[in-house]
Amino acid sequence: MAKRIAVLGAGSWGTALAQIQAQTGHTVTLWDRKRDFVQEVTRTRENRKYHPGIQLSPNIRPETEIRTAVQNADFVILAIPSHAVRETLLKAYPSFSKNCVAINAAKGLDLETQETMLTVVTKAMGEAFARDRYAVLSGPSFAYEVVRGLPTAVTVAACNPKTAEQIQNACHTEPFHIYTTDDVIGVEIAGALKNVIAIVTGVVDGFKLGNNARAGLITRGLVEISRIGKALGAHPLTFSGLAGLGDLILTCTGDLSRNRRVGIKMAEGKSLRTIMKEVGQVAEGIRTTKSAYLLAKKLKVDVPILTEAYLAMYEGKSPETAIRDLLARDPQWERD
Amino acid sequence: MAKRIAVLGAGSWGTALAQIQAQTGHTVTLWDRKRDFVQEVTRTRENRKYHPGIQLSPNIRPETEIRTAVQNADFVILAIPSHAVRETLLKAYPSFSKNCVAINAAKGLDLETQETMLTVVTKAMGEAFARDRYAVLSGPSFAYEVVRGLPTAVTVAACNPKTAEQIQNACHTEPFHIYTTDDVIGVEIAGALKNVIAIVTGVVDGFKLGNNARAGLITRGLVEISRIGKALGAHPLTFSGLAGLGDLILTCTGDLSRNRRVGIKMAEGKSLRTIMKEVGQVAEGIRTTKSAYLLAKKLKVDVPILTEAYLAMYEGKSPETAIRDLLARDPQWERD
Repeated sequence: MAKRIAVLGAGSWGTALAQIQAQTGHTVTLWDRKRDFVQEVTRTRENRKYHPGIQLSPNIRPETEIRTAVQNADFVILAIPSHAVRETLLKAYPSFSKNCVAINAAKGLDLETQETMLTVVTKAMGEAFARDRYAVLSGPSFAYEVVRGLPTAVTVAACNPKTAEQIQNACHTEPFHIYTTDDVIGVEIAGALKNVIAIVTGVVDGFKLGNNARAGLITRGLVEISRIGKALGAHPLTFSGLAGLGDLILTCTGDLSRNRRVGIKMAEGKSLRTIMKEVGQVAEGIRTTKSAYLLAKKLKVDVPILTEAYLAMYEGKSPETAIRDLLARDPQWERD
Repeated sequence: MAKRIAVLGAGSWGTALAQIQAQTGHTVTLWDRKRDFVQEVTRTRENRKYHPGIQLSPNIRPETEIRTAVQNADFVILAIPSHAVRETLLKAYPSFSKNCVAINAAKGLDLETQETMLTVVTKAMGEAFARDRYAVLSGPSFAYEVVRGLPTAVTVAACNPKTAEQIQNACHTEPFHIYTTDDVIGVEIAGALKNVIAIVTGVVDGFKLGNNARAGLITRGLVEISRIGKALGAHPLTFSGLAGLGDLILTCTGDLSRNRRVGIKMAEGKSLRTIMKEVGQVAEGIRTTKSAYLLAKKLKVDVPILTEAYLAMYEGKSPETAIRDLLARDPQWERD
């Protein structure tokens, strides 16, 4: 049955999600805080900034008023940077219908508290909402491919498994496969922290250390992400799933990843300030590196790769020395 | 302290392992069943077939007699195709010194019984040998990079953790990191079966289904490998380790992988016979696809990707239909 979906944020990812759901037959409103941009999308039926050449489905209605956008929606998809999740949700909430479910598609941690979005949402909206009406969507999904209908598999996690299934029933389509889980924390930690490993992968690529080093780094990076997740109560196998390993592989080996480009530029000796200018779009991994480091410290979890990434980005350590120190570590038992 | 190491098999991987260990200061004999080839390597101090341009370390002594090669060796590395492990070990064993440890670097299952090399070795050499004097070396390691001293991390698994540690203590070097585990079955299953997923990845790449599809396939492929492993008693987290996920990433995304090339050619509509001629070197994944399918059937484990790979390779199903059937599967709960 056709649903009403509101997508908040008409960036690359929000637009792709709006398009794939509109093509499934759902009615989609697409809101963005940039009013001029929404008007341009309305006029041209195209998101020229992020998906030039892609004709938007007639089922998509661009919208400048956030409360109008979410009115009567069954699902509200949050496709905005993670630091804007709290504020946007609070602004839209008064117009939510009674059973409307919020689906978070943003990947990041709260900058001040290092909490995942589940905690941010719990604090803002209350426990009952977070348990029954909040889900997170994550997994290996370049927007460029989703908007073109190429096959993609993602995970939807909700504390209440019925909420996840409800989304799966409505939104799973032939090119857009939805797997479900109840491990929200695991999916959120995996989604946020993979961006840091992607940056380090970029550094390894920049120094031309080879495919072996890259695969080793991704694997050991996932071990560190998994350690942090487990300390927060996540299920260890979530990290071998689509939101963990799947997304990590994509971000670390796909040519389209912004975060990896950040690392390549670090290996060229460029400063963070210069890199942020050159990469243009937000690379969430830069902020997340700091949050991840602080979080691991708080949890007393051993994370050598995340630590070297933090030192290289925020404490002036040269990326070359950081990589050398990583490689000089003592031999380990693997499952520790 | 310098050890004596015999490497059996002077192919791409055996030669790379010989070189990296010889450069660490160990004394290495390098045996191969092709006598002419060994004589050429002796004369040229180069393995022109697999590593042209790489000058072999003076610590490597090529050897035509297998028993001479293994005499007094502390470690015997088996760098031969998996179907030759049993015979080679039985041939060399009479000259093994008392505490000599066999390190298997071959990835594959016994064709007739679908057993891993641990069982093959247990049957041939007895339980005591398999427990204390057998180890398997696996992980993301293109020989091309190892022979050039690029950083690489691998896993060494032995039923007796002390055996694995003994190898780690002797063979771990700055560019060649060795992690240890006691999950031999897990490491062997992961190493063998990843070749099948690599072939399917090649098919997905050949049909230009995109990075999302590839990352999703790798992730779900690892779930299937892990299901088979668990049914055989392996530790689930082994599959997130270097021999599992690490090697899978490398084989599925690295441009150098033979098995992936097989899949790309399948997508072009070529027959297995033609492909085997074109790819030249042995692609273990072709044989392993059949073994993996039979093994999963025997264990009653659900493996949709491995099954479609088998049908496309051995039962005349078109790769296009196989991929379409995979994509049309019903939605799932992720951790099942």
